[in-house]
Amino acid sequence: MRAITEEKFELILKFLEENKIDVLLITDSENSRNVNLQYLSGHPTDATMLIKSSGESFLIPWDIALAEKHSEVEEIINPANFSFNTLLTLKDLFENRWKKSEIMVGVHSMTSYGYIVKMKALIPGVKFFEEPIQIGQLLQELRATKTEFEIKSLIKAAEIGTKTINDIREFCMNSPNGTEKELSFLVRKKIADYGGDDIAFETLVANSSRAHELHQYPFASDQKFGLPGLALIDFGAKCQGYHSDITIPISFGKLSDEQNKMREFTINAYETAIEMIDIGVALWKIHDTAEQILKKGGYSMPYALGHGLGLTEHDSPIISRKPTDEYSKKHWKEETIQDGMVFTIEPGAYKQGLGGQRLENDFLIRNGKVELITKSEPLEF
Amino acid sequence: MRAITEEKFELILKFLEENKIDVLLITDSENSRNVNLQYLSGHPTDATMLIKSSGESFLIPWDIALAEKHSEVEEIINPANFSFNTLLTLKDLFENRWKKSEIMVGVHSMTSYGYIVKMKALIPGVKFFEEPIQIGQLLQELRATKTEFEIKSLIKAAEIGTKTINDIREFCMNSPNGTEKELSFLVRKKIADYGGDDIAFETLVANSSRAHELHQYPFASDQKFGLPGLALIDFGAKCQGYHSDITIPISFGKLSDEQNKMREFTINAYETAIEMIDIGVALWKIHDTAEQILKKGGYSMPYALGHGLGLTEHDSPIISRKPTDEYSKKHWKEETIQDGMVFTIEPGAYKQGLGGQRLENDFLIRNGKVELITKSEPLEF
Repeated sequence: MRAITEEKFELILKFLEENKIDVLLITDSENSRNVNLQYLSGHPTDATMLIKSSGESFLIPWDIALAEKHSEVEEIINPANFSFNTLLTLKDLFENRWKKSEIMVGVHSMTSYGYIVKMKALIPGVKFFEEPIQIGQLLQELRATKTEFEIKSLIKAAEIGTKTINDIREFCMNSPNGTEKELSFLVRKKIADYGGDDIAFETLVANSSRAHELHQYPFASDQKFGLPGLALIDFGAKCQGYHSDITIPISFGKLSDEQNKMREFTINAYETAIEMIDIGVALWKIHDTAEQILKKGGYSMPYALGHGLGLTEHDSPIISRKPTDEYSKKHWKEETIQDGMVFTIEPGAYKQGLGGQRLENDFLIRNGKVELITKSEPLEF
Repeated sequence: MRAITEEKFELILKFLEENKIDVLLITDSENSRNVNLQYLSGHPTDATMLIKSSGESFLIPWDIALAEKHSEVEEIINPANFSFNTLLTLKDLFENRWKKSEIMVGVHSMTSYGYIVKMKALIPGVKFFEEPIQIGQLLQELRATKTEFEIKSLIKAAEIGTKTINDIREFCMNSPNGTEKELSFLVRKKIADYGGDDIAFETLVANSSRAHELHQYPFASDQKFGLPGLALIDFGAKCQGYHSDITIPISFGKLSDEQNKMREFTINAYETAIEMIDIGVALWKIHDTAEQILKKGGYSMPYALGHGLGLTEHDSPIISRKPTDEYSKKHWKEETIQDGMVFTIEPGAYKQGLGGQRLENDFLIRNGKVELITKSEPLEF
């Protein structure tokens, strides 16, 4: 089943018409994933989808049986008739079936440049809409507010994530010598046990010796997790393609004053930010407020305070600062909190030698109200 | 450490010079992974690399500390000075430091069209080399033959995969009611225990009710694995970024004549194919021979007989049929087996109602000899 509503689908058709685009093309393959395929067609993976400005949609899947089970389109076209070559299948469709000597194709901004060049060489009548970023943005905006169907999956993913917190607590209590990798495995196992289809992303498990890093590599190491100081675990569950995202700040042993201060500032930034969440509030203001608090403590947060959750782990909206450079300013517009949004809030404080703290929960805006859908809180051992 | 040899690096510079490309640009990000970043710079992820035709290389990483640990380039450029915007960082480099009013940039074919359009708008002096596919192909060709450093990691990944076969055998014997998901977990656990950094790709576990499908979805289900008939498990290990890939054909219970025939034809196709492996042999001939055998049995194999292994699970070379359409024919050239190649051979027979069989092992060509580096064979229970 496709997630997009009829109403939003009409907005796509309107966009195509206004921009004189004959057909929108979304392609998903091993080398270039694009969740809009699932969003628009219901088919999860490895296919090319076409949406004509008249509203008809077509799917060229690698696996016909899978498409018959999952997709919601007017026609499934079998690429086996064209040696499984999608471009040859498209050529036949455009030239022989649609009899188009010229066709304006709108592609998603993530489409590879190689694909564009190949299509142009193979189907000379193709012209590409020159603002692929507008297409990417339109789809992101449509996906930023969720339908009831999507919210159900997001809540399930959030609940499974929350259940797992208890297992993480027990691991920290009962396995003082347990490694980061062991904890990462436990999270994966429990998420599966609780009915998740998968983890949402590679679980990041960082003990106090590396929790200050922005970008732990590897995500979980063979080091012991419970070293004295400030540690964190960042994880989530995936259900029917939808993601949850939780970070638990965890401390082991007696903390120094500076470490206690990192905790306090993180919690303060978090609490101040979530109190601001309300329909119509500008996202950048929430980010700025949290960042200012952290700055006063001497901490920098060089990332966005929060991000949407949906078919990707980083969906729209992004809760981030206003851009400062001229180019980005020109393309930026103020976004505000709206009904149907699901997003994280995740401030943190990090210092080499002391560790890192980040508190992250997921929020749903429904019927004008803010719902906290995950239940992370700082843990102490 | 970067994997590419000096000799191969020179071939890239020669290509740049011949095509009047000032700088080669490789970019890897969450939405668009490109292992050539690791191959060319040593830095594993989330960065943009530049190689000037003069040979100097530059890295714009998201994480400076990680880059300092892993990369082998002339200069690491900090994007924090440009709000972590890579394009603004590039603009400064091209316009202010290199003082280029025009610059010919060669991008990899996988670079997104949106990135191209954005860069062009932001840095008007940029021109793009119009054959990005040539760049993609050149890098694939260079990566198709492995260095000793790469071979070491590939052999380690193969050994870990082979060790895991025994655990899979025990699971089939001792857990008659075990599910596909449980087996998938076991594989992940054992690969980690044996020192793998990760699984090579999502383990595909298919009991006889779904082993005929080309494209199992989900990869492993909650169904019991040991149903009577023909099942399979397709899995691999990842070590230092390098992949192994193994499929074990597994039968449960007494097989029908047709099921026995599927086994025999699979094994026959496999054995005939591997006997052909030798330096200089054309890859398409090996594919065709295996496919002909399967066809005689009434089975179709709508995929390539084998593929290279390296920094991706599907590296060069591809052991596949000759193309039949005019466009692909024009770009096709015969490839032969060469020293340093590492690839799979994986014929199979599939029939709805009976199940599926695929036998897959990994082969290394070293010092003119063929080495079997994994040890899968059909299992019966």
